Amino acid sequence: MGKDIQPSAQRIWEHCEALARCSEQADELTRVFLSPQQHAANELVQGWMREAGMDARLDAIGNVVGRYEGSEPGLPSLLMGSHLDTVRDAGKYDGMLGVIAAIECVHVLNQRAQRLPFALEVVGFADEEGVRFGATLLGSRAIAGTFDPALLDKTDKGGMTMRQALAEFGLDPARISRAAKKPQEVLAFAELHIEQGPVLEDEGLPVGVVTAINGASRFSVEIDGMAGHAGTVPMNLRQDALAAAAECVLAIEARARQTPELVATVGRIEALPGATNVVPGKAVFTIDIRSPRDAERIDAVADVKRAIESACARRKVRPTIIQTHEGKTAACARWLMDEIGAAIAAEGIAVRELPSGAGHDGMAIIDLPADIGMLFVRCKGGISHNPAEAITLEDVETSTRVFLHFIENFQPKPRR
Amino acid sequence: MGKDIQPSAQRIWEHCEALARCSEQADELTRVFLSPQQHAANELVQGWMREAGMDARLDAIGNVVGRYEGSEPGLPSLLMGSHLDTVRDAGKYDGMLGVIAAIECVHVLNQRAQRLPFALEVVGFADEEGVRFGATLLGSRAIAGTFDPALLDKTDKGGMTMRQALAEFGLDPARISRAAKKPQEVLAFAELHIEQGPVLEDEGLPVGVVTAINGASRFSVEIDGMAGHAGTVPMNLRQDALAAAAECVLAIEARARQTPELVATVGRIEALPGATNVVPGKAVFTIDIRSPRDAERIDAVADVKRAIESACARRKVRPTIIQTHEGKTAACARWLMDEIGAAIAAEGIAVRELPSGAGHDGMAIIDLPADIGMLFVRCKGGISHNPAEAITLEDVETSTRVFLHFIENFQPKPRR
Repeated sequence: MGKDIQPSAQRIWEHCEALARCSEQADELTRVFLSPQQHAANELVQGWMREAGMDARLDAIGNVVGRYEGSEPGLPSLLMGSHLDTVRDAGKYDGMLGVIAAIECVHVLNQRAQRLPFALEVVGFADEEGVRFGATLLGSRAIAGTFDPALLDKTDKGGMTMRQALAEFGLDPARISRAAKKPQEVLAFAELHIEQGPVLEDEGLPVGVVTAINGASRFSVEIDGMAGHAGTVPMNLRQDALAAAAECVLAIEARARQTPELVATVGRIEALPGATNVVPGKAVFTIDIRSPRDAERIDAVADVKRAIESACARRKVRPTIIQTHEGKTAACARWLMDEIGAAIAAEGIAVRELPSGAGHDGMAIIDLPADIGMLFVRCKGGISHNPAEAITLEDVETSTRVFLHFIENFQPKPRR
Repeated sequence: MGKDIQPSAQRIWEHCEALARCSEQADELTRVFLSPQQHAANELVQGWMREAGMDARLDAIGNVVGRYEGSEPGLPSLLMGSHLDTVRDAGKYDGMLGVIAAIECVHVLNQRAQRLPFALEVVGFADEEGVRFGATLLGSRAIAGTFDPALLDKTDKGGMTMRQALAEFGLDPARISRAAKKPQEVLAFAELHIEQGPVLEDEGLPVGVVTAINGASRFSVEIDGMAGHAGTVPMNLRQDALAAAAECVLAIEARARQTPELVATVGRIEALPGATNVVPGKAVFTIDIRSPRDAERIDAVADVKRAIESACARRKVRPTIIQTHEGKTAACARWLMDEIGAAIAAEGIAVRELPSGAGHDGMAIIDLPADIGMLFVRCKGGISHNPAEAITLEDVETSTRVFLHFIENFQPKPRR
C-alpha cells in the first residue's frame, strides 16, 4: 500500500502561510465570513482538495466541502475539518491547520491509491468565530441542520444583513437547509486543532486527545456596599464593596482548584466611585466557569454563588448575580477518543486526554447528531487568537501522522 | 457674668444657610478660593464678626481674621476658626461650621461683656480644599508663614495664575508673608469641625476630641502576570494578575484591622485586558494608608509591601509599587486635648478621643509652630464633601456650648 508515503509537514506549513495571506490587512490576519478574503481562501482550499484527489464544492452557507470516495462510491463518510474564518488580528493555525492537515492526509491516501471502507469528507467551515455577524458556528450549524434562519437578518457593522452578504457571495440563503448532512451519511466527526492552551507544552507532549468541548456559565456580579471617606471611616464600620469582591475572586479561584479540569475566571473588575481616597461603595466583576462535565460546572456555579452570598452577608454588602451565558458541554465520544488515543500510542507518544476550554465546530456537529472527536496539537505558550500563535514544523508532522493513522484505522461505531 | 447667655444654635444654623447661598451654582454649593462667591462670604463673615464685637479684616491671602481683645489690648491669642472655601457640590458644614461657631462663642462673651486673660482670634481660612489651584491649605499656610511663593504661578483651569487671581481679588501677592503670625502671638489653635466620619454617630456621641490629623501614605501598584484564554489555561498554570491583586486587597484590609485607628483602602482597581473570557495579565490598584501615629503607619506600609511581594512571589507574578503621596501626622497637643475633653465632660458627655482621617488647617498651623486641638461634631452617616452632609440643630447647640466652655476655661500652656 506504499506506507512509505507520509504527510508532508512542509506542504501543510506552506498552505498555512498561503491562507494567512488571504487577509483584510497586509500586516495582520483577519478573514471573516463571506468576505472577498474568504472567497480567495476557498479557492485555494478547493484547489488543494482537488490536488488531493477529492471532489470539491461550496455548500449553501459557503463551507468548502471535499469528498474522497471509499472502496465504493456513496459510502457514509468520516467527516473531518475545521474552520477557515479567523478572529481579527489572528494567528495562522486556529482552524486552518485542521482543514489543511485533513486534506494532506487524503492527499497521502490518494498518492498511495488507498481507498478505505468509508468515504472521507473534509470541510472548511465558513464561520466558526462569529466575528462578522456576532453569531458563531454558522458553517457547522448549517451542516448539522441547526442553522436558525432568523440569523439571516443579523447585520454586520456596515449594516449589511447576512442574507445580503450570502447573495453577494453568490450563495442562495433559501438553500442553506440543503447544506445539512443526513445523520446516516456521517460516521463521526474528527477535528485536528491547536490546543490554544498550555497543557501539552507544559507536559512536553506534541498531541493530546480531547475529552470534551467544555460547557460554560458566565455571570455578571454587582456588589453594593457603602462608599466612604478613605481617611475617616474606621475599618470596623466599613462596607467595602471591593474588599467583598476580592474575597469573591479568591473564593472563585479556590473553588475552581477543587475540581480537576474545571476553570473559573474573573476577567473584569471595577470599583466605584473609583477614587484613591474613597472606600468603594460598589464593585462589579464578571465570572466565567467552564468544565468538561456539565454536572461539575453546575455544582461549581452553585458553590460560587453560595460563597459570594456568604462573603457578602458577612460583610453586610448586597450582591446581585446575573447570568449572561450558559452553554452545555459537547462531550467527545469514548470510542473516538480511544481510536485517536490508539493512533497517538502507535506513534510512541504518551496518550494525554484533556478537555477543550475553547469552543469548536464539534459543538454544532454533535447535534446532527454525530459522535465527535478531536486531536489537539501543542502550541507555543498556549497563545491563540493572537499573531503570536505558533507551532513547530515537527509537531505538524507528528500530529498529521497521528491523524492519518487514526483515519486509516478508523472503525466506525456499529449503528444501534 | 451672665452665664445664662448661651450660644444660639439657631443663629449658627442661619449663618450656615447664608454662607451656603454664596455659591457658583444656584442648586449646589461650590465656593472656591478668590472667587466672587468667596468675596460675598467674606463680607458676611466680617459682618458677623463685627456684630460679635470683633475687629474684622482680610489678610494678604484673603483669610478673614476677627479679633476680640482680652482683658487688655494686644495679648497673645487663642486662635480659632476653620475654612470658608468648599469642594465642588459640597455640604454646608465642612469648614464653615467651625468659623461660625467660633464667632458665635465670641458673640456670647461680648454679650456678657466678658473678657478673658488672652485675646481671641477667629480665622475664616480662604483655601483649605485646594480646588481652584490644586494646592491645599493656602490660607493656613500663609498664617503659619509656610506659604511657598512658587505656588503663585499655579494656574486654575481657566489659565489664570494665583498671582493674577489675588490681584483681581484686590490682594497684593507681595504681602502674603505679612499674613504670617508670630509664634509668640498664638497660644494655641483650636478648630471645631464636623467629623466627616461615622464614629461619633455609631457611638451615639455628639462630640469628640481629635487626637491627631492622620498622616497618609499612598501607592499605585501594578501586578504583571500572564494573560490567557479563560477556557484553556488550567488553574495550576495560571499567573492571574487579578487573583494576586485580590489577595493583596484582603491582605491590606487584614493588616489595617490589626492596628487600632489605622485605615487602609484600595479605592481603584482594574484588570487588563479586561475581558470576561481572558485571564487578567495585568492588574493595577491604589492603596491609601492613614494613621494618627506615623510609626504605626510606616510599619503598616512595610507590612503591606511585604504582603504584596509575598503574595506575588507565591503566584509567580511581578508587582511594581510606586509611592504617590507621603504626609506626616499632625498630632494634637495632649494639654489641649485634655482641656477640650474637660469641656465635654463639663457638659455631661462621655469623652471620646478619635483621630481625624481627613486633613484640616491644623496640619499647616502646627508648623507656625503652634499646638493644635480639634473638637469634632457628629455628622449624619459620616457623609461629607457631598450635599447630603448633615448635622442636627441639637448637636450644633451642644458642640458650641462645649467649645465656649473650652474657650472660657482655656489655660495656656506655660511657655518653656
